[in-house]
Amino acid sequence: MKKSLGATPIAIPSPVWMIGSYSADATANLMVASWCGICSSNPPCIALSVKQSRLTYQNIIEHDAFTVNIPSQDQVCLVDYVGTVSGKDEAKFIATGLTSVKSELVDAPYVKECAMNIECKLIHAMDIGIHTQFIGQIVDVKADKRILDGNLNPSVKKLKPIIASASDRSYYAVGEYIGQVYHIGNKQVNIPQNF
Amino acid sequence: MKKSLGATPIAIPSPVWMIGSYSADATANLMVASWCGICSSNPPCIALSVKQSRLTYQNIIEHDAFTVNIPSQDQVCLVDYVGTVSGKDEAKFIATGLTSVKSELVDAPYVKECAMNIECKLIHAMDIGIHTQFIGQIVDVKADKRILDGNLNPSVKKLKPIIASASDRSYYAVGEYIGQVYHIGNKQVNIPQNF
Repeated sequence: MKKSLGATPIAIPSPVWMIGSYSADATANLMVASWCGICSSNPPCIALSVKQSRLTYQNIIEHDAFTVNIPSQDQVCLVDYVGTVSGKDEAKFIATGLTSVKSELVDAPYVKECAMNIECKLIHAMDIGIHTQFIGQIVDVKADKRILDGNLNPSVKKLKPIIASASDRSYYAVGEYIGQVYHIGNKQVNIPQNF
Repeated sequence: MKKSLGATPIAIPSPVWMIGSYSADATANLMVASWCGICSSNPPCIALSVKQSRLTYQNIIEHDAFTVNIPSQDQVCLVDYVGTVSGKDEAKFIATGLTSVKSELVDAPYVKECAMNIECKLIHAMDIGIHTQFIGQIVDVKADKRILDGNLNPSVKKLKPIIASASDRSYYAVGEYIGQVYHIGNKQVNIPQNF
Protein backbone atom coordinates (compact mmCIF):
# COMPACT_ATOMS: atom_id res chain seq x y z
CA MET A 1 0.00 0.00 0.00
CA LYS A 2 1.32 3.42 -0.99
CA LYS A 3 0.77 6.51 1.13
CA SER A 4 0.60 9.99 -0.40
CA LEU A 5 3.07 12.33 1.31
CA GLY A 6 2.11 15.44 -0.67
CA ALA A 7 4.14 17.83 -2.81
CA THR A 8 7.31 17.83 -0.74
CA PRO A 9 10.98 18.11 -1.75
CA ILE A 10 12.15 14.71 -0.54
CA ALA A 11 14.02 12.33 -2.75
CA ILE A 12 16.93 10.18 -1.71
CA PRO A 13 19.89 9.99 -1.70
CA SER A 14 21.90 13.15 -2.52
CA PRO A 15 25.59 14.14 -2.36
CA VAL A 16 27.16 16.39 0.29
CA TRP A 17 29.55 18.89 -1.25
CA MET A 18 31.10 22.18 -0.15
CA ILE A 19 30.87 25.07 -2.60
CA GLY A 20 33.72 27.59 -2.70
CA SER A 21 33.19 31.18 -3.85
CA TYR A 22 34.61 34.68 -3.34
CA SER A 23 32.71 37.60 -1.79
CA ALA A 24 32.84 41.09 -3.32
CA ASP A 25 35.75 41.87 -0.96
CA ALA A 26 37.58 38.69 -2.08
CA THR A 27 36.87 36.78 1.15
CA ALA A 28 36.75 33.06 0.44
CA ASN A 29 33.44 31.51 1.46
CA LEU A 30 32.03 28.00 1.77
CA MET A 31 28.48 26.66 1.52
CA VAL A 32 27.27 23.10 2.03
CA ALA A 33 25.21 21.85 -0.91
CA SER A 34 23.21 18.70 -1.39
CA TRP A 35 20.91 19.79 -4.21
CA CYS A 36 23.57 19.49 -6.87
CA GLY A 37 25.09 17.05 -9.33
CA ILE A 38 26.52 16.50 -12.78
CA CYS A 39 24.07 17.59 -15.48
CA SER A 40 25.84 17.25 -18.83
CA SER A 41 28.80 15.57 -20.47
CA ASN A 42 29.63 17.88 -23.38
CA PRO A 43 30.29 20.47 -22.14
CA PRO A 44 30.86 18.76 -18.77
CA CYS A 45 28.69 20.66 -16.30
CA ILE A 46 27.46 20.66 -12.74
CA ALA A 47 24.03 21.89 -11.67
CA LEU A 48 23.93 23.60 -8.29
CA SER A 49 20.83 24.88 -6.54
CA VAL A 50 21.37 27.91 -4.25
CA LYS A 51 18.83 30.01 -2.32
CA GLN A 52 18.86 33.61 -3.52
CA SER A 53 19.21 34.78 0.11
CA ARG A 54 22.61 33.08 0.47
CA LEU A 55 25.97 34.84 0.28
CA THR A 56 27.07 32.14 -2.18
CA TYR A 57 24.29 33.25 -4.57
CA GLN A 58 25.67 36.81 -4.67
CA ASN A 59 29.23 35.53 -4.95
CA ILE A 60 28.54 33.26 -7.92
CA ILE A 61 26.61 36.00 -9.73
CA GLU A 62 29.46 38.49 -9.16
CA HIS A 63 32.39 36.18 -9.98
CA ASP A 64 30.82 33.82 -12.55
CA ALA A 65 32.52 30.88 -10.86
CA PHE A 66 32.37 28.33 -8.04
CA THR A 67 34.21 25.22 -6.92
CA VAL A 68 32.85 21.88 -5.77
CA ASN A 69 34.85 20.38 -2.92
CA ILE A 70 34.00 16.78 -2.03
CA PRO A 71 34.56 16.11 1.66
CA SER A 72 35.28 12.75 3.24
CA GLN A 73 33.33 11.00 5.96
CA ASP A 74 35.91 11.98 8.59
CA GLN A 75 35.23 15.67 7.80
CA VAL A 76 31.48 15.42 8.38
CA CYS A 77 31.36 17.44 11.63
CA LEU A 78 33.33 20.23 10.00
CA VAL A 79 31.02 20.14 6.98
CA ASP A 80 27.95 20.26 9.20
CA TYR A 81 29.38 23.28 11.00
CA VAL A 82 29.93 25.05 7.67
CA GLY A 83 26.24 24.43 6.94
CA THR A 84 25.06 26.03 10.18
CA VAL A 85 26.66 29.48 9.86
CA SER A 86 26.52 32.19 7.19
CA GLY A 87 29.56 33.68 5.52
CA LYS A 88 27.82 37.01 6.11
CA ASP A 89 28.55 36.55 9.85
CA GLU A 90 31.78 34.61 9.90
CA ALA A 91 34.83 33.88 7.73
CA LYS A 92 34.32 30.13 7.48
CA PHE A 93 37.79 29.22 6.24
CA ILE A 94 39.28 30.94 9.30
CA ALA A 95 36.69 29.47 11.68
CA THR A 96 37.30 25.93 10.44
CA GLY A 97 41.03 26.14 9.83
CA LEU A 98 40.48 24.94 6.27
CA THR A 99 42.90 26.26 3.65
CA SER A 100 41.59 28.33 0.74
CA VAL A 101 43.50 27.85 -2.50
CA LYS A 102 42.99 30.40 -5.29
CA SER A 103 42.07 28.62 -8.51
CA GLU A 104 44.27 29.49 -11.48
CA LEU A 105 41.41 28.67 -13.84
CA VAL A 106 38.29 30.30 -12.38
CA ASP A 107 37.60 33.16 -9.97
CA ALA A 108 36.81 30.98 -6.96
CA PRO A 109 38.73 29.30 -4.12
CA TYR A 110 38.97 25.57 -3.51
CA VAL A 111 39.57 23.64 -0.30
CA LYS A 112 43.04 22.14 0.06
CA GLU A 113 41.85 19.63 2.69
CA CYS A 114 39.14 18.14 0.44
CA ALA A 115 40.56 15.28 -1.61
CA MET A 116 38.56 16.18 -4.73
CA ASN A 117 38.02 19.69 -6.15
CA ILE A 118 36.08 20.69 -9.26
CA GLU A 119 36.54 24.16 -10.73
CA CYS A 120 33.48 25.53 -12.54
CA LYS A 121 32.74 28.64 -14.57
CA LEU A 122 29.14 29.82 -14.60
CA ILE A 123 27.39 29.41 -17.97
CA HIS A 124 23.68 29.56 -17.02
CA ALA A 125 21.49 30.68 -14.12
CA MET A 126 17.78 29.90 -13.91
CA ASP A 127 15.51 31.08 -11.10
CA ILE A 128 13.07 28.52 -9.68
CA GLY A 129 11.10 30.15 -6.88
CA ILE A 130 13.44 31.10 -4.02
CA HIS A 131 16.27 29.00 -5.48
CA THR A 132 18.48 29.57 -8.49
CA GLN A 133 19.77 26.66 -10.53
CA PHE A 134 23.36 27.51 -11.48
CA ILE A 135 25.00 25.57 -14.30
CA GLY A 136 28.77 25.55 -14.00
CA GLN A 137 30.99 24.23 -16.76
CA ILE A 138 33.73 22.00 -15.36
CA VAL A 139 37.11 23.47 -16.23
CA ASP A 140 39.22 21.01 -14.25
CA VAL A 141 38.92 18.21 -11.71
CA LYS A 142 41.74 17.91 -9.19
CA ALA A 143 42.18 14.90 -6.92
CA ASP A 144 44.57 13.99 -4.17
CA LYS A 145 46.86 11.23 -5.46
CA ARG A 146 46.09 9.23 -2.31
CA ILE A 147 42.47 8.70 -3.41
CA LEU A 148 43.17 7.60 -7.00
CA ASP A 149 42.65 3.98 -8.02
CA GLY A 150 44.83 2.00 -10.43
CA ASN A 151 43.11 3.65 -13.40
CA LEU A 152 43.79 7.13 -11.97
CA ASN A 153 40.09 7.60 -11.19
CA PRO A 154 38.99 8.92 -7.79
CA SER A 155 38.16 5.88 -5.67
CA VAL A 156 34.90 5.85 -3.73
CA LYS A 157 36.43 3.51 -1.15
CA LYS A 158 39.38 5.85 -0.62
CA LEU A 159 37.53 9.20 -0.79
CA LYS A 160 34.60 8.01 1.35
CA PRO A 161 32.15 10.73 0.24
CA ILE A 162 29.16 11.62 2.43
CA ILE A 163 25.53 11.03 1.45
CA ALA A 164 22.56 13.09 2.62
CA SER A 165 18.94 12.12 3.00
CA ALA A 166 16.37 14.90 2.60
CA SER A 167 13.82 12.53 4.08
CA ASP A 168 15.22 12.19 7.61
CA ARG A 169 17.73 15.08 7.30
CA SER A 170 20.66 12.81 8.06
CA TYR A 171 24.14 11.98 6.82
CA TYR A 172 25.08 8.46 5.77
CA ALA A 173 28.30 6.78 4.67
CA VAL A 174 28.71 5.10 1.32
CA GLY A 175 28.34 1.37 1.81
CA GLU A 176 29.40 -1.78 0.01
CA TYR A 177 30.34 -2.03 -3.66
CA ILE A 178 27.51 -3.65 -5.62
CA GLY A 179 28.76 -3.90 -9.20
CA GLN A 180 29.61 -2.23 -12.48
CA VAL A 181 27.10 -0.02 -14.28
CA TYR A 182 25.82 -1.68 -17.50
CA HIS A 183 27.36 -5.01 -16.51
CA ILE A 184 25.17 -6.54 -13.82
CA GLY A 185 21.85 -6.33 -15.67
CA ASN A 186 20.39 -9.54 -17.02
CA LYS A 187 17.68 -10.19 -19.58
CA GLN A 188 16.26 -12.83 -17.24
CA VAL A 189 15.49 -10.32 -14.52
CA ASN A 190 13.25 -11.45 -11.71
CA ILE A 191 11.14 -9.25 -9.53
CA PRO A 192 11.97 -9.90 -5.85
CA GLN A 193 9.26 -12.00 -4.26
CA ASN A 194 8.48 -9.43 -1.59
CA PHE A 195 7.13 -6.98 -4.16
CA MET B 1 49.67 16.32 -3.88
CA LYS B 2 46.73 16.98 -6.21
CA LYS B 3 46.61 15.62 -9.74
CA SER B 4 44.71 17.42 -12.51
CA LEU B 5 42.26 15.04 -14.19
CA GLY B 6 41.01 17.54 -16.79
CA ALA B 7 37.54 18.82 -17.64
CA THR B 8 35.66 15.59 -17.10
CA PRO B 9 32.12 14.94 -15.78
CA ILE B 10 33.05 13.02 -12.66
CA ALA B 11 31.72 13.98 -9.26
CA ILE B 12 30.60 11.55 -6.59
CA PRO B 13 28.21 10.28 -5.36
CA SER B 14 24.90 10.45 -7.26
CA PRO B 15 21.48 8.80 -6.90
CA VAL B 16 20.13 5.99 -9.08
CA TRP B 17 16.53 6.57 -10.09
CA MET B 18 14.20 5.23 -12.78
CA ILE B 19 12.30 7.82 -14.80
CA GLY B 20 8.80 6.93 -16.02
CA SER B 21 7.28 8.53 -19.12
CA TYR B 22 4.79 7.81 -21.89
CA SER B 23 5.64 7.52 -25.59
CA ALA B 24 3.50 9.16 -28.28
CA ASP B 25 1.56 5.87 -28.60
CA ALA B 26 1.02 5.79 -24.79
CA THR B 27 3.57 3.02 -24.19
CA ALA B 28 5.02 3.35 -20.70
CA ASN B 29 8.82 3.70 -20.74
CA LEU B 30 11.60 3.68 -18.17
CA MET B 31 15.04 5.30 -18.16
CA VAL B 32 17.75 5.02 -15.53
CA ALA B 33 18.98 8.43 -14.35
CA SER B 34 21.83 9.41 -12.09
CA TRP B 35 22.28 13.04 -13.14
CA CYS B 36 19.26 14.25 -11.21
CA GLY B 37 18.18 15.56 -7.84
CA ILE B 38 16.01 18.00 -5.91
CA CYS B 39 16.64 21.57 -7.04
CA SER B 40 14.13 23.77 -5.21
CA SER B 41 11.80 23.81 -2.21
CA ASN B 42 9.10 26.29 -3.22
CA PRO B 43 7.87 25.16 -5.64
CA PRO B 44 9.32 21.73 -4.81
CA CYS B 45 11.17 20.61 -7.94
CA ILE B 46 13.46 17.95 -9.33
CA ALA B 47 16.15 18.59 -11.93
CA LEU B 48 16.68 15.76 -14.40
CA SER B 49 19.32 15.65 -17.12
CA VAL B 50 18.38 13.66 -20.24
CA LYS B 51 20.25 13.22 -23.53
CA GLN B 52 18.27 14.63 -26.43
CA SER B 53 18.73 11.35 -28.32
CA ARG B 54 16.78 9.41 -25.71
CA LEU B 55 13.16 8.30 -26.04
CA THR B 56 12.54 9.76 -22.58
CA TYR B 57 13.52 13.21 -23.91
CA GLN B 58 10.81 13.06 -26.58
CA ASN B 59 8.31 11.64 -24.11
CA ILE B 60 8.81 14.38 -21.53
CA ILE B 61 8.61 17.10 -24.19
CA GLU B 62 5.37 15.61 -25.56
CA HIS B 63 3.63 14.87 -22.26
CA ASP B 64 5.06 17.63 -20.00
CA ALA B 65 5.50 15.09 -17.22
CA PHE B 66 7.72 12.38 -15.73
CA THR B 67 7.92 10.27 -12.60
CA VAL B 68 10.91 9.50 -10.39
CA ASN B 69 10.89 5.93 -9.09
CA ILE B 70 13.46 5.15 -6.41
CA PRO B 71 14.59 1.53 -6.59
CA SER B 72 15.99 -0.53 -3.74
CA GLN B 73 19.31 -2.29 -3.61
CA ASP B 74 17.68 -5.67 -4.26
CA GLN B 75 16.37 -4.32 -7.60
CA VAL B 76 19.80 -3.24 -8.86
CA CYS B 77 20.18 -5.91 -11.58
CA LEU B 78 16.76 -5.03 -12.95
CA VAL B 79 17.66 -1.32 -12.87
CA ASP B 80 20.93 -1.97 -14.66
CA TYR B 81 19.08 -3.92 -17.32
CA VAL B 82 16.69 -1.00 -17.84
CA GLY B 83 19.77 1.18 -18.38
CA THR B 84 21.21 -1.04 -21.10
CA VAL B 85 18.28 -1.12 -23.55
CA SER B 86 16.29 1.61 -25.31
CA GLY B 87 12.54 1.96 -25.13
CA LYS B 88 12.75 2.48 -28.90
CA ASP B 89 13.66 -1.22 -29.22
CA GLU B 90 11.83 -2.84 -26.35
CA ALA B 91 8.84 -2.27 -24.06
CA LYS B 92 10.80 -2.20 -20.80
CA PHE B 93 7.87 -2.68 -18.44
CA ILE B 94 6.96 -5.89 -20.29
CA ALA B 95 10.59 -7.07 -20.50
CA THR B 96 11.17 -6.56 -16.78
CA GLY B 97 7.77 -7.59 -15.49
CA LEU B 98 7.47 -4.29 -13.66
CA THR B 99 3.98 -2.85 -13.29
CA SER B 100 3.15 0.53 -14.84
CA VAL B 101 0.62 2.57 -12.86
CA LYS B 102 -1.04 5.53 -14.59
CA SER B 103 -0.65 8.65 -12.46
CA GLU B 104 -3.88 10.45 -11.67
CA LEU B 105 -2.00 13.73 -11.31
CA VAL B 106 0.42 13.92 -14.26
CA ASP B 107 0.61 12.33 -17.71
CA ALA B 108 3.27 9.75 -16.83
CA PRO B 109 3.40 6.22 -15.40
CA TYR B 110 5.03 5.21 -12.14
CA VAL B 111 6.48 1.88 -11.05
CA LYS B 112 4.38 -0.09 -8.59
CA GLU B 113 7.36 -2.18 -7.46
CA CYS B 114 9.48 0.85 -6.48
CA ALA B 115 8.80 1.80 -2.86
CA MET B 116 8.97 5.54 -3.55
CA ASN B 117 7.42 7.41 -6.49
CA ILE B 118 7.50 11.12 -7.25
CA GLU B 119 5.10 12.59 -9.82
CA CYS B 120 6.42 15.66 -11.63
CA LYS B 121 4.98 18.10 -14.14
CA LEU B 122 7.45 19.80 -16.47
CA ILE B 123 7.90 23.52 -15.81
CA HIS B 124 11.24 24.28 -17.52
CA ALA B 125 13.60 22.73 -20.05
CA MET B 126 17.09 24.06 -20.70
CA ASP B 127 19.46 22.64 -23.33
CA ILE B 128 23.09 22.17 -22.26
CA GLY B 129 25.02 20.66 -25.18
CA ILE B 130 23.67 17.18 -25.96
CA HIS B 131 21.71 17.07 -22.69
CA THR B 132 18.56 18.87 -21.61
CA GLN B 133 18.02 19.87 -18.01
CA PHE B 134 14.35 19.25 -17.26
CA ILE B 135 12.83 20.90 -14.18
CA GLY B 136 9.81 18.99 -12.91
CA GLN B 137 7.56 20.39 -10.21
CA ILE B 138 6.75 17.73 -7.62
CA VAL B 139 2.99 17.20 -7.53
CA ASP B 140 3.00 14.29 -5.09
CA VAL B 141 5.36 11.85 -3.37
CA LYS B 142 4.03 8.34 -2.79
CA ALA B 143 5.76 5.83 -0.54
CA ASP B 144 5.15 2.24 0.38
CA LYS B 145 3.97 2.13 4.01
CA ARG B 146 6.58 -0.56 4.68
CA ILE B 147 9.43 1.94 4.17
CA LEU B 148 8.07 4.75 6.38
CA ASP B 149 9.70 5.52 9.71
CA GLY B 150 7.89 6.57 12.92
CA ASN B 151 7.57 10.13 11.61
CA LEU B 152 6.00 8.88 8.36
CA ASN B 153 9.14 9.83 6.42
CA PRO B 154 10.68 7.38 3.95
CA SER B 155 13.44 5.54 5.81
CA VAL B 156 16.84 5.21 4.17
CA LYS B 157 17.48 2.01 6.10
CA LYS B 158 14.20 0.49 4.91
CA LEU B 159 14.24 1.75 1.30
CA LYS B 160 17.94 0.99 0.77
CA PRO B 161 18.40 3.32 -2.23
CA ILE B 162 21.28 2.74 -4.67
CA ILE B 163 24.21 5.11 -5.15
CA ALA B 164 26.19 5.54 -8.36
CA SER B 165 29.76 6.67 -8.86
CA ALA B 166 30.54 8.41 -12.16
CA SER B 167 34.21 7.95 -11.34
CA ASP B 168 34.43 4.15 -11.48
CA ARG B 169 31.00 3.62 -13.10
CA SER B 170 29.81 1.46 -10.24
CA TYR B 171 26.84 0.98 -7.94
CA TYR B 172 27.19 1.18 -4.17
CA ALA B 173 24.87 0.61 -1.23
CA VAL B 174 24.09 3.28 1.33
CA GLY B 175 26.19 2.64 4.40
CA GLU B 176 26.00 3.46 8.06
CA TYR B 177 24.04 6.32 9.61
CA ILE B 178 26.41 9.15 10.59
CA GLY B 179 24.20 11.80 12.22
CA GLN B 180 21.63 14.54 11.90
CA VAL B 181 22.11 17.46 9.52
CA TYR B 182 22.76 20.74 11.42
CA HIS B 183 23.26 18.85 14.68
CA ILE B 184 26.68 17.24 14.56
CA GLY B 185 28.71 20.36 13.71
CA ASN B 186 30.83 21.85 16.44
CA LYS B 187 32.45 25.27 16.74
CA GLN B 188 35.60 23.52 18.01
CA VAL B 189 36.13 21.69 14.74
CA ASN B 190 39.47 20.00 14.24
CA ILE B 191 41.02 19.21 10.90
CA PRO B 192 41.94 15.51 10.77
CA GLN B 193 45.66 15.06 11.24
CA ASN B 194 46.13 13.22 7.99
CA PHE B 195 45.24 16.31 5.94
